Amino acid sequence: MMDASSAPTRTTLSPWLSVRGGARAVEFYKQAFGAVEVYRIEDPDGNVVSRLSIGGGEFWLADESPEHGNASAGGDGASAAVRMILTVADPDAVFAQAIAADAREIYPVSESHGWRVGRIVDPFGHHREIGRQLDRE
Amino acid sequence: MMDASSAPTRTTLSPWLSVRGGARAVEFYKQAFGAVEVYRIEDPDGNVVSRLSIGGGEFWLADESPEHGNASAGGDGASAAVRMILTVADPDAVFAQAIAADAREIYPVSESHGWRVGRIVDPFGHHREIGRQLDRE
Repeated sequence: MMDASSAPTRTTLSPWLSVRGGARAVEFYKQAFGAVEVYRIEDPDGNVVSRLSIGGGEFWLADESPEHGNASAGGDGASAAVRMILTVADPDAVFAQAIAADAREIYPVSESHGWRVGRIVDPFGHHREIGRQLDRE
Repeated sequence: MMDASSAPTRTTLSPWLSVRGGARAVEFYKQAFGAVEVYRIEDPDGNVVSRLSIGGGEFWLADESPEHGNASAGGDGASAAVRMILTVADPDAVFAQAIAADAREIYPVSESHGWRVGRIVDPFGHHREIGRQLDRE
């Protein structure tokens, strides 16, 4: 049963930033652009995952995690310095379509943290997560 | 006088990809994600600037231009491999606010190619263009 917050998935595309000092970065984006933090999780070490909206234009940021391929722009991440999250109703189908078009699998589609999501790198070196939130259609 | 296409500027945030082989990249994104090309310019050398929509989730791509700091993810661009374009009604004000918050100017706000736009790099190494189309409010 779905509650009132379970709107159908809308296709969106937003940048995702890997940074050194996520909590400081959130404050910077608030100050620099009037960003509003609409979602945040924080681990015991103070590392954050934050979803920010600039007048409805949304992006995500997280502390860098080089061991997962998410180095910051100031690190050695190069192509993973900014990755993208593509939210779609059927991530399995889109993931398969991307692989068929010559994208390379980084992580297969699986359920993780309330999402069904996988990750590919395209032939041009850009990383993309493809997923949907599990509590939405 | 504004025509029917001159809707007020809406705040949006979309990734911008620098790639090697822009025309091939457009075809890849069409194939991989069902992207629709909604805008394209191409120079005599075949370099493209393309605006693509994946179900309304938009992004831009352009052939890499390392001399302007826009190296592809496969090049030596690191932080410039993906930059962001922030579209706002008053780019001068937002640009000034970002500089005041400790962003560094890459290009000042000026009129170029139908946009009023400037470029900053934030303290975390991420590049952002801030602008609006001149034919919109």
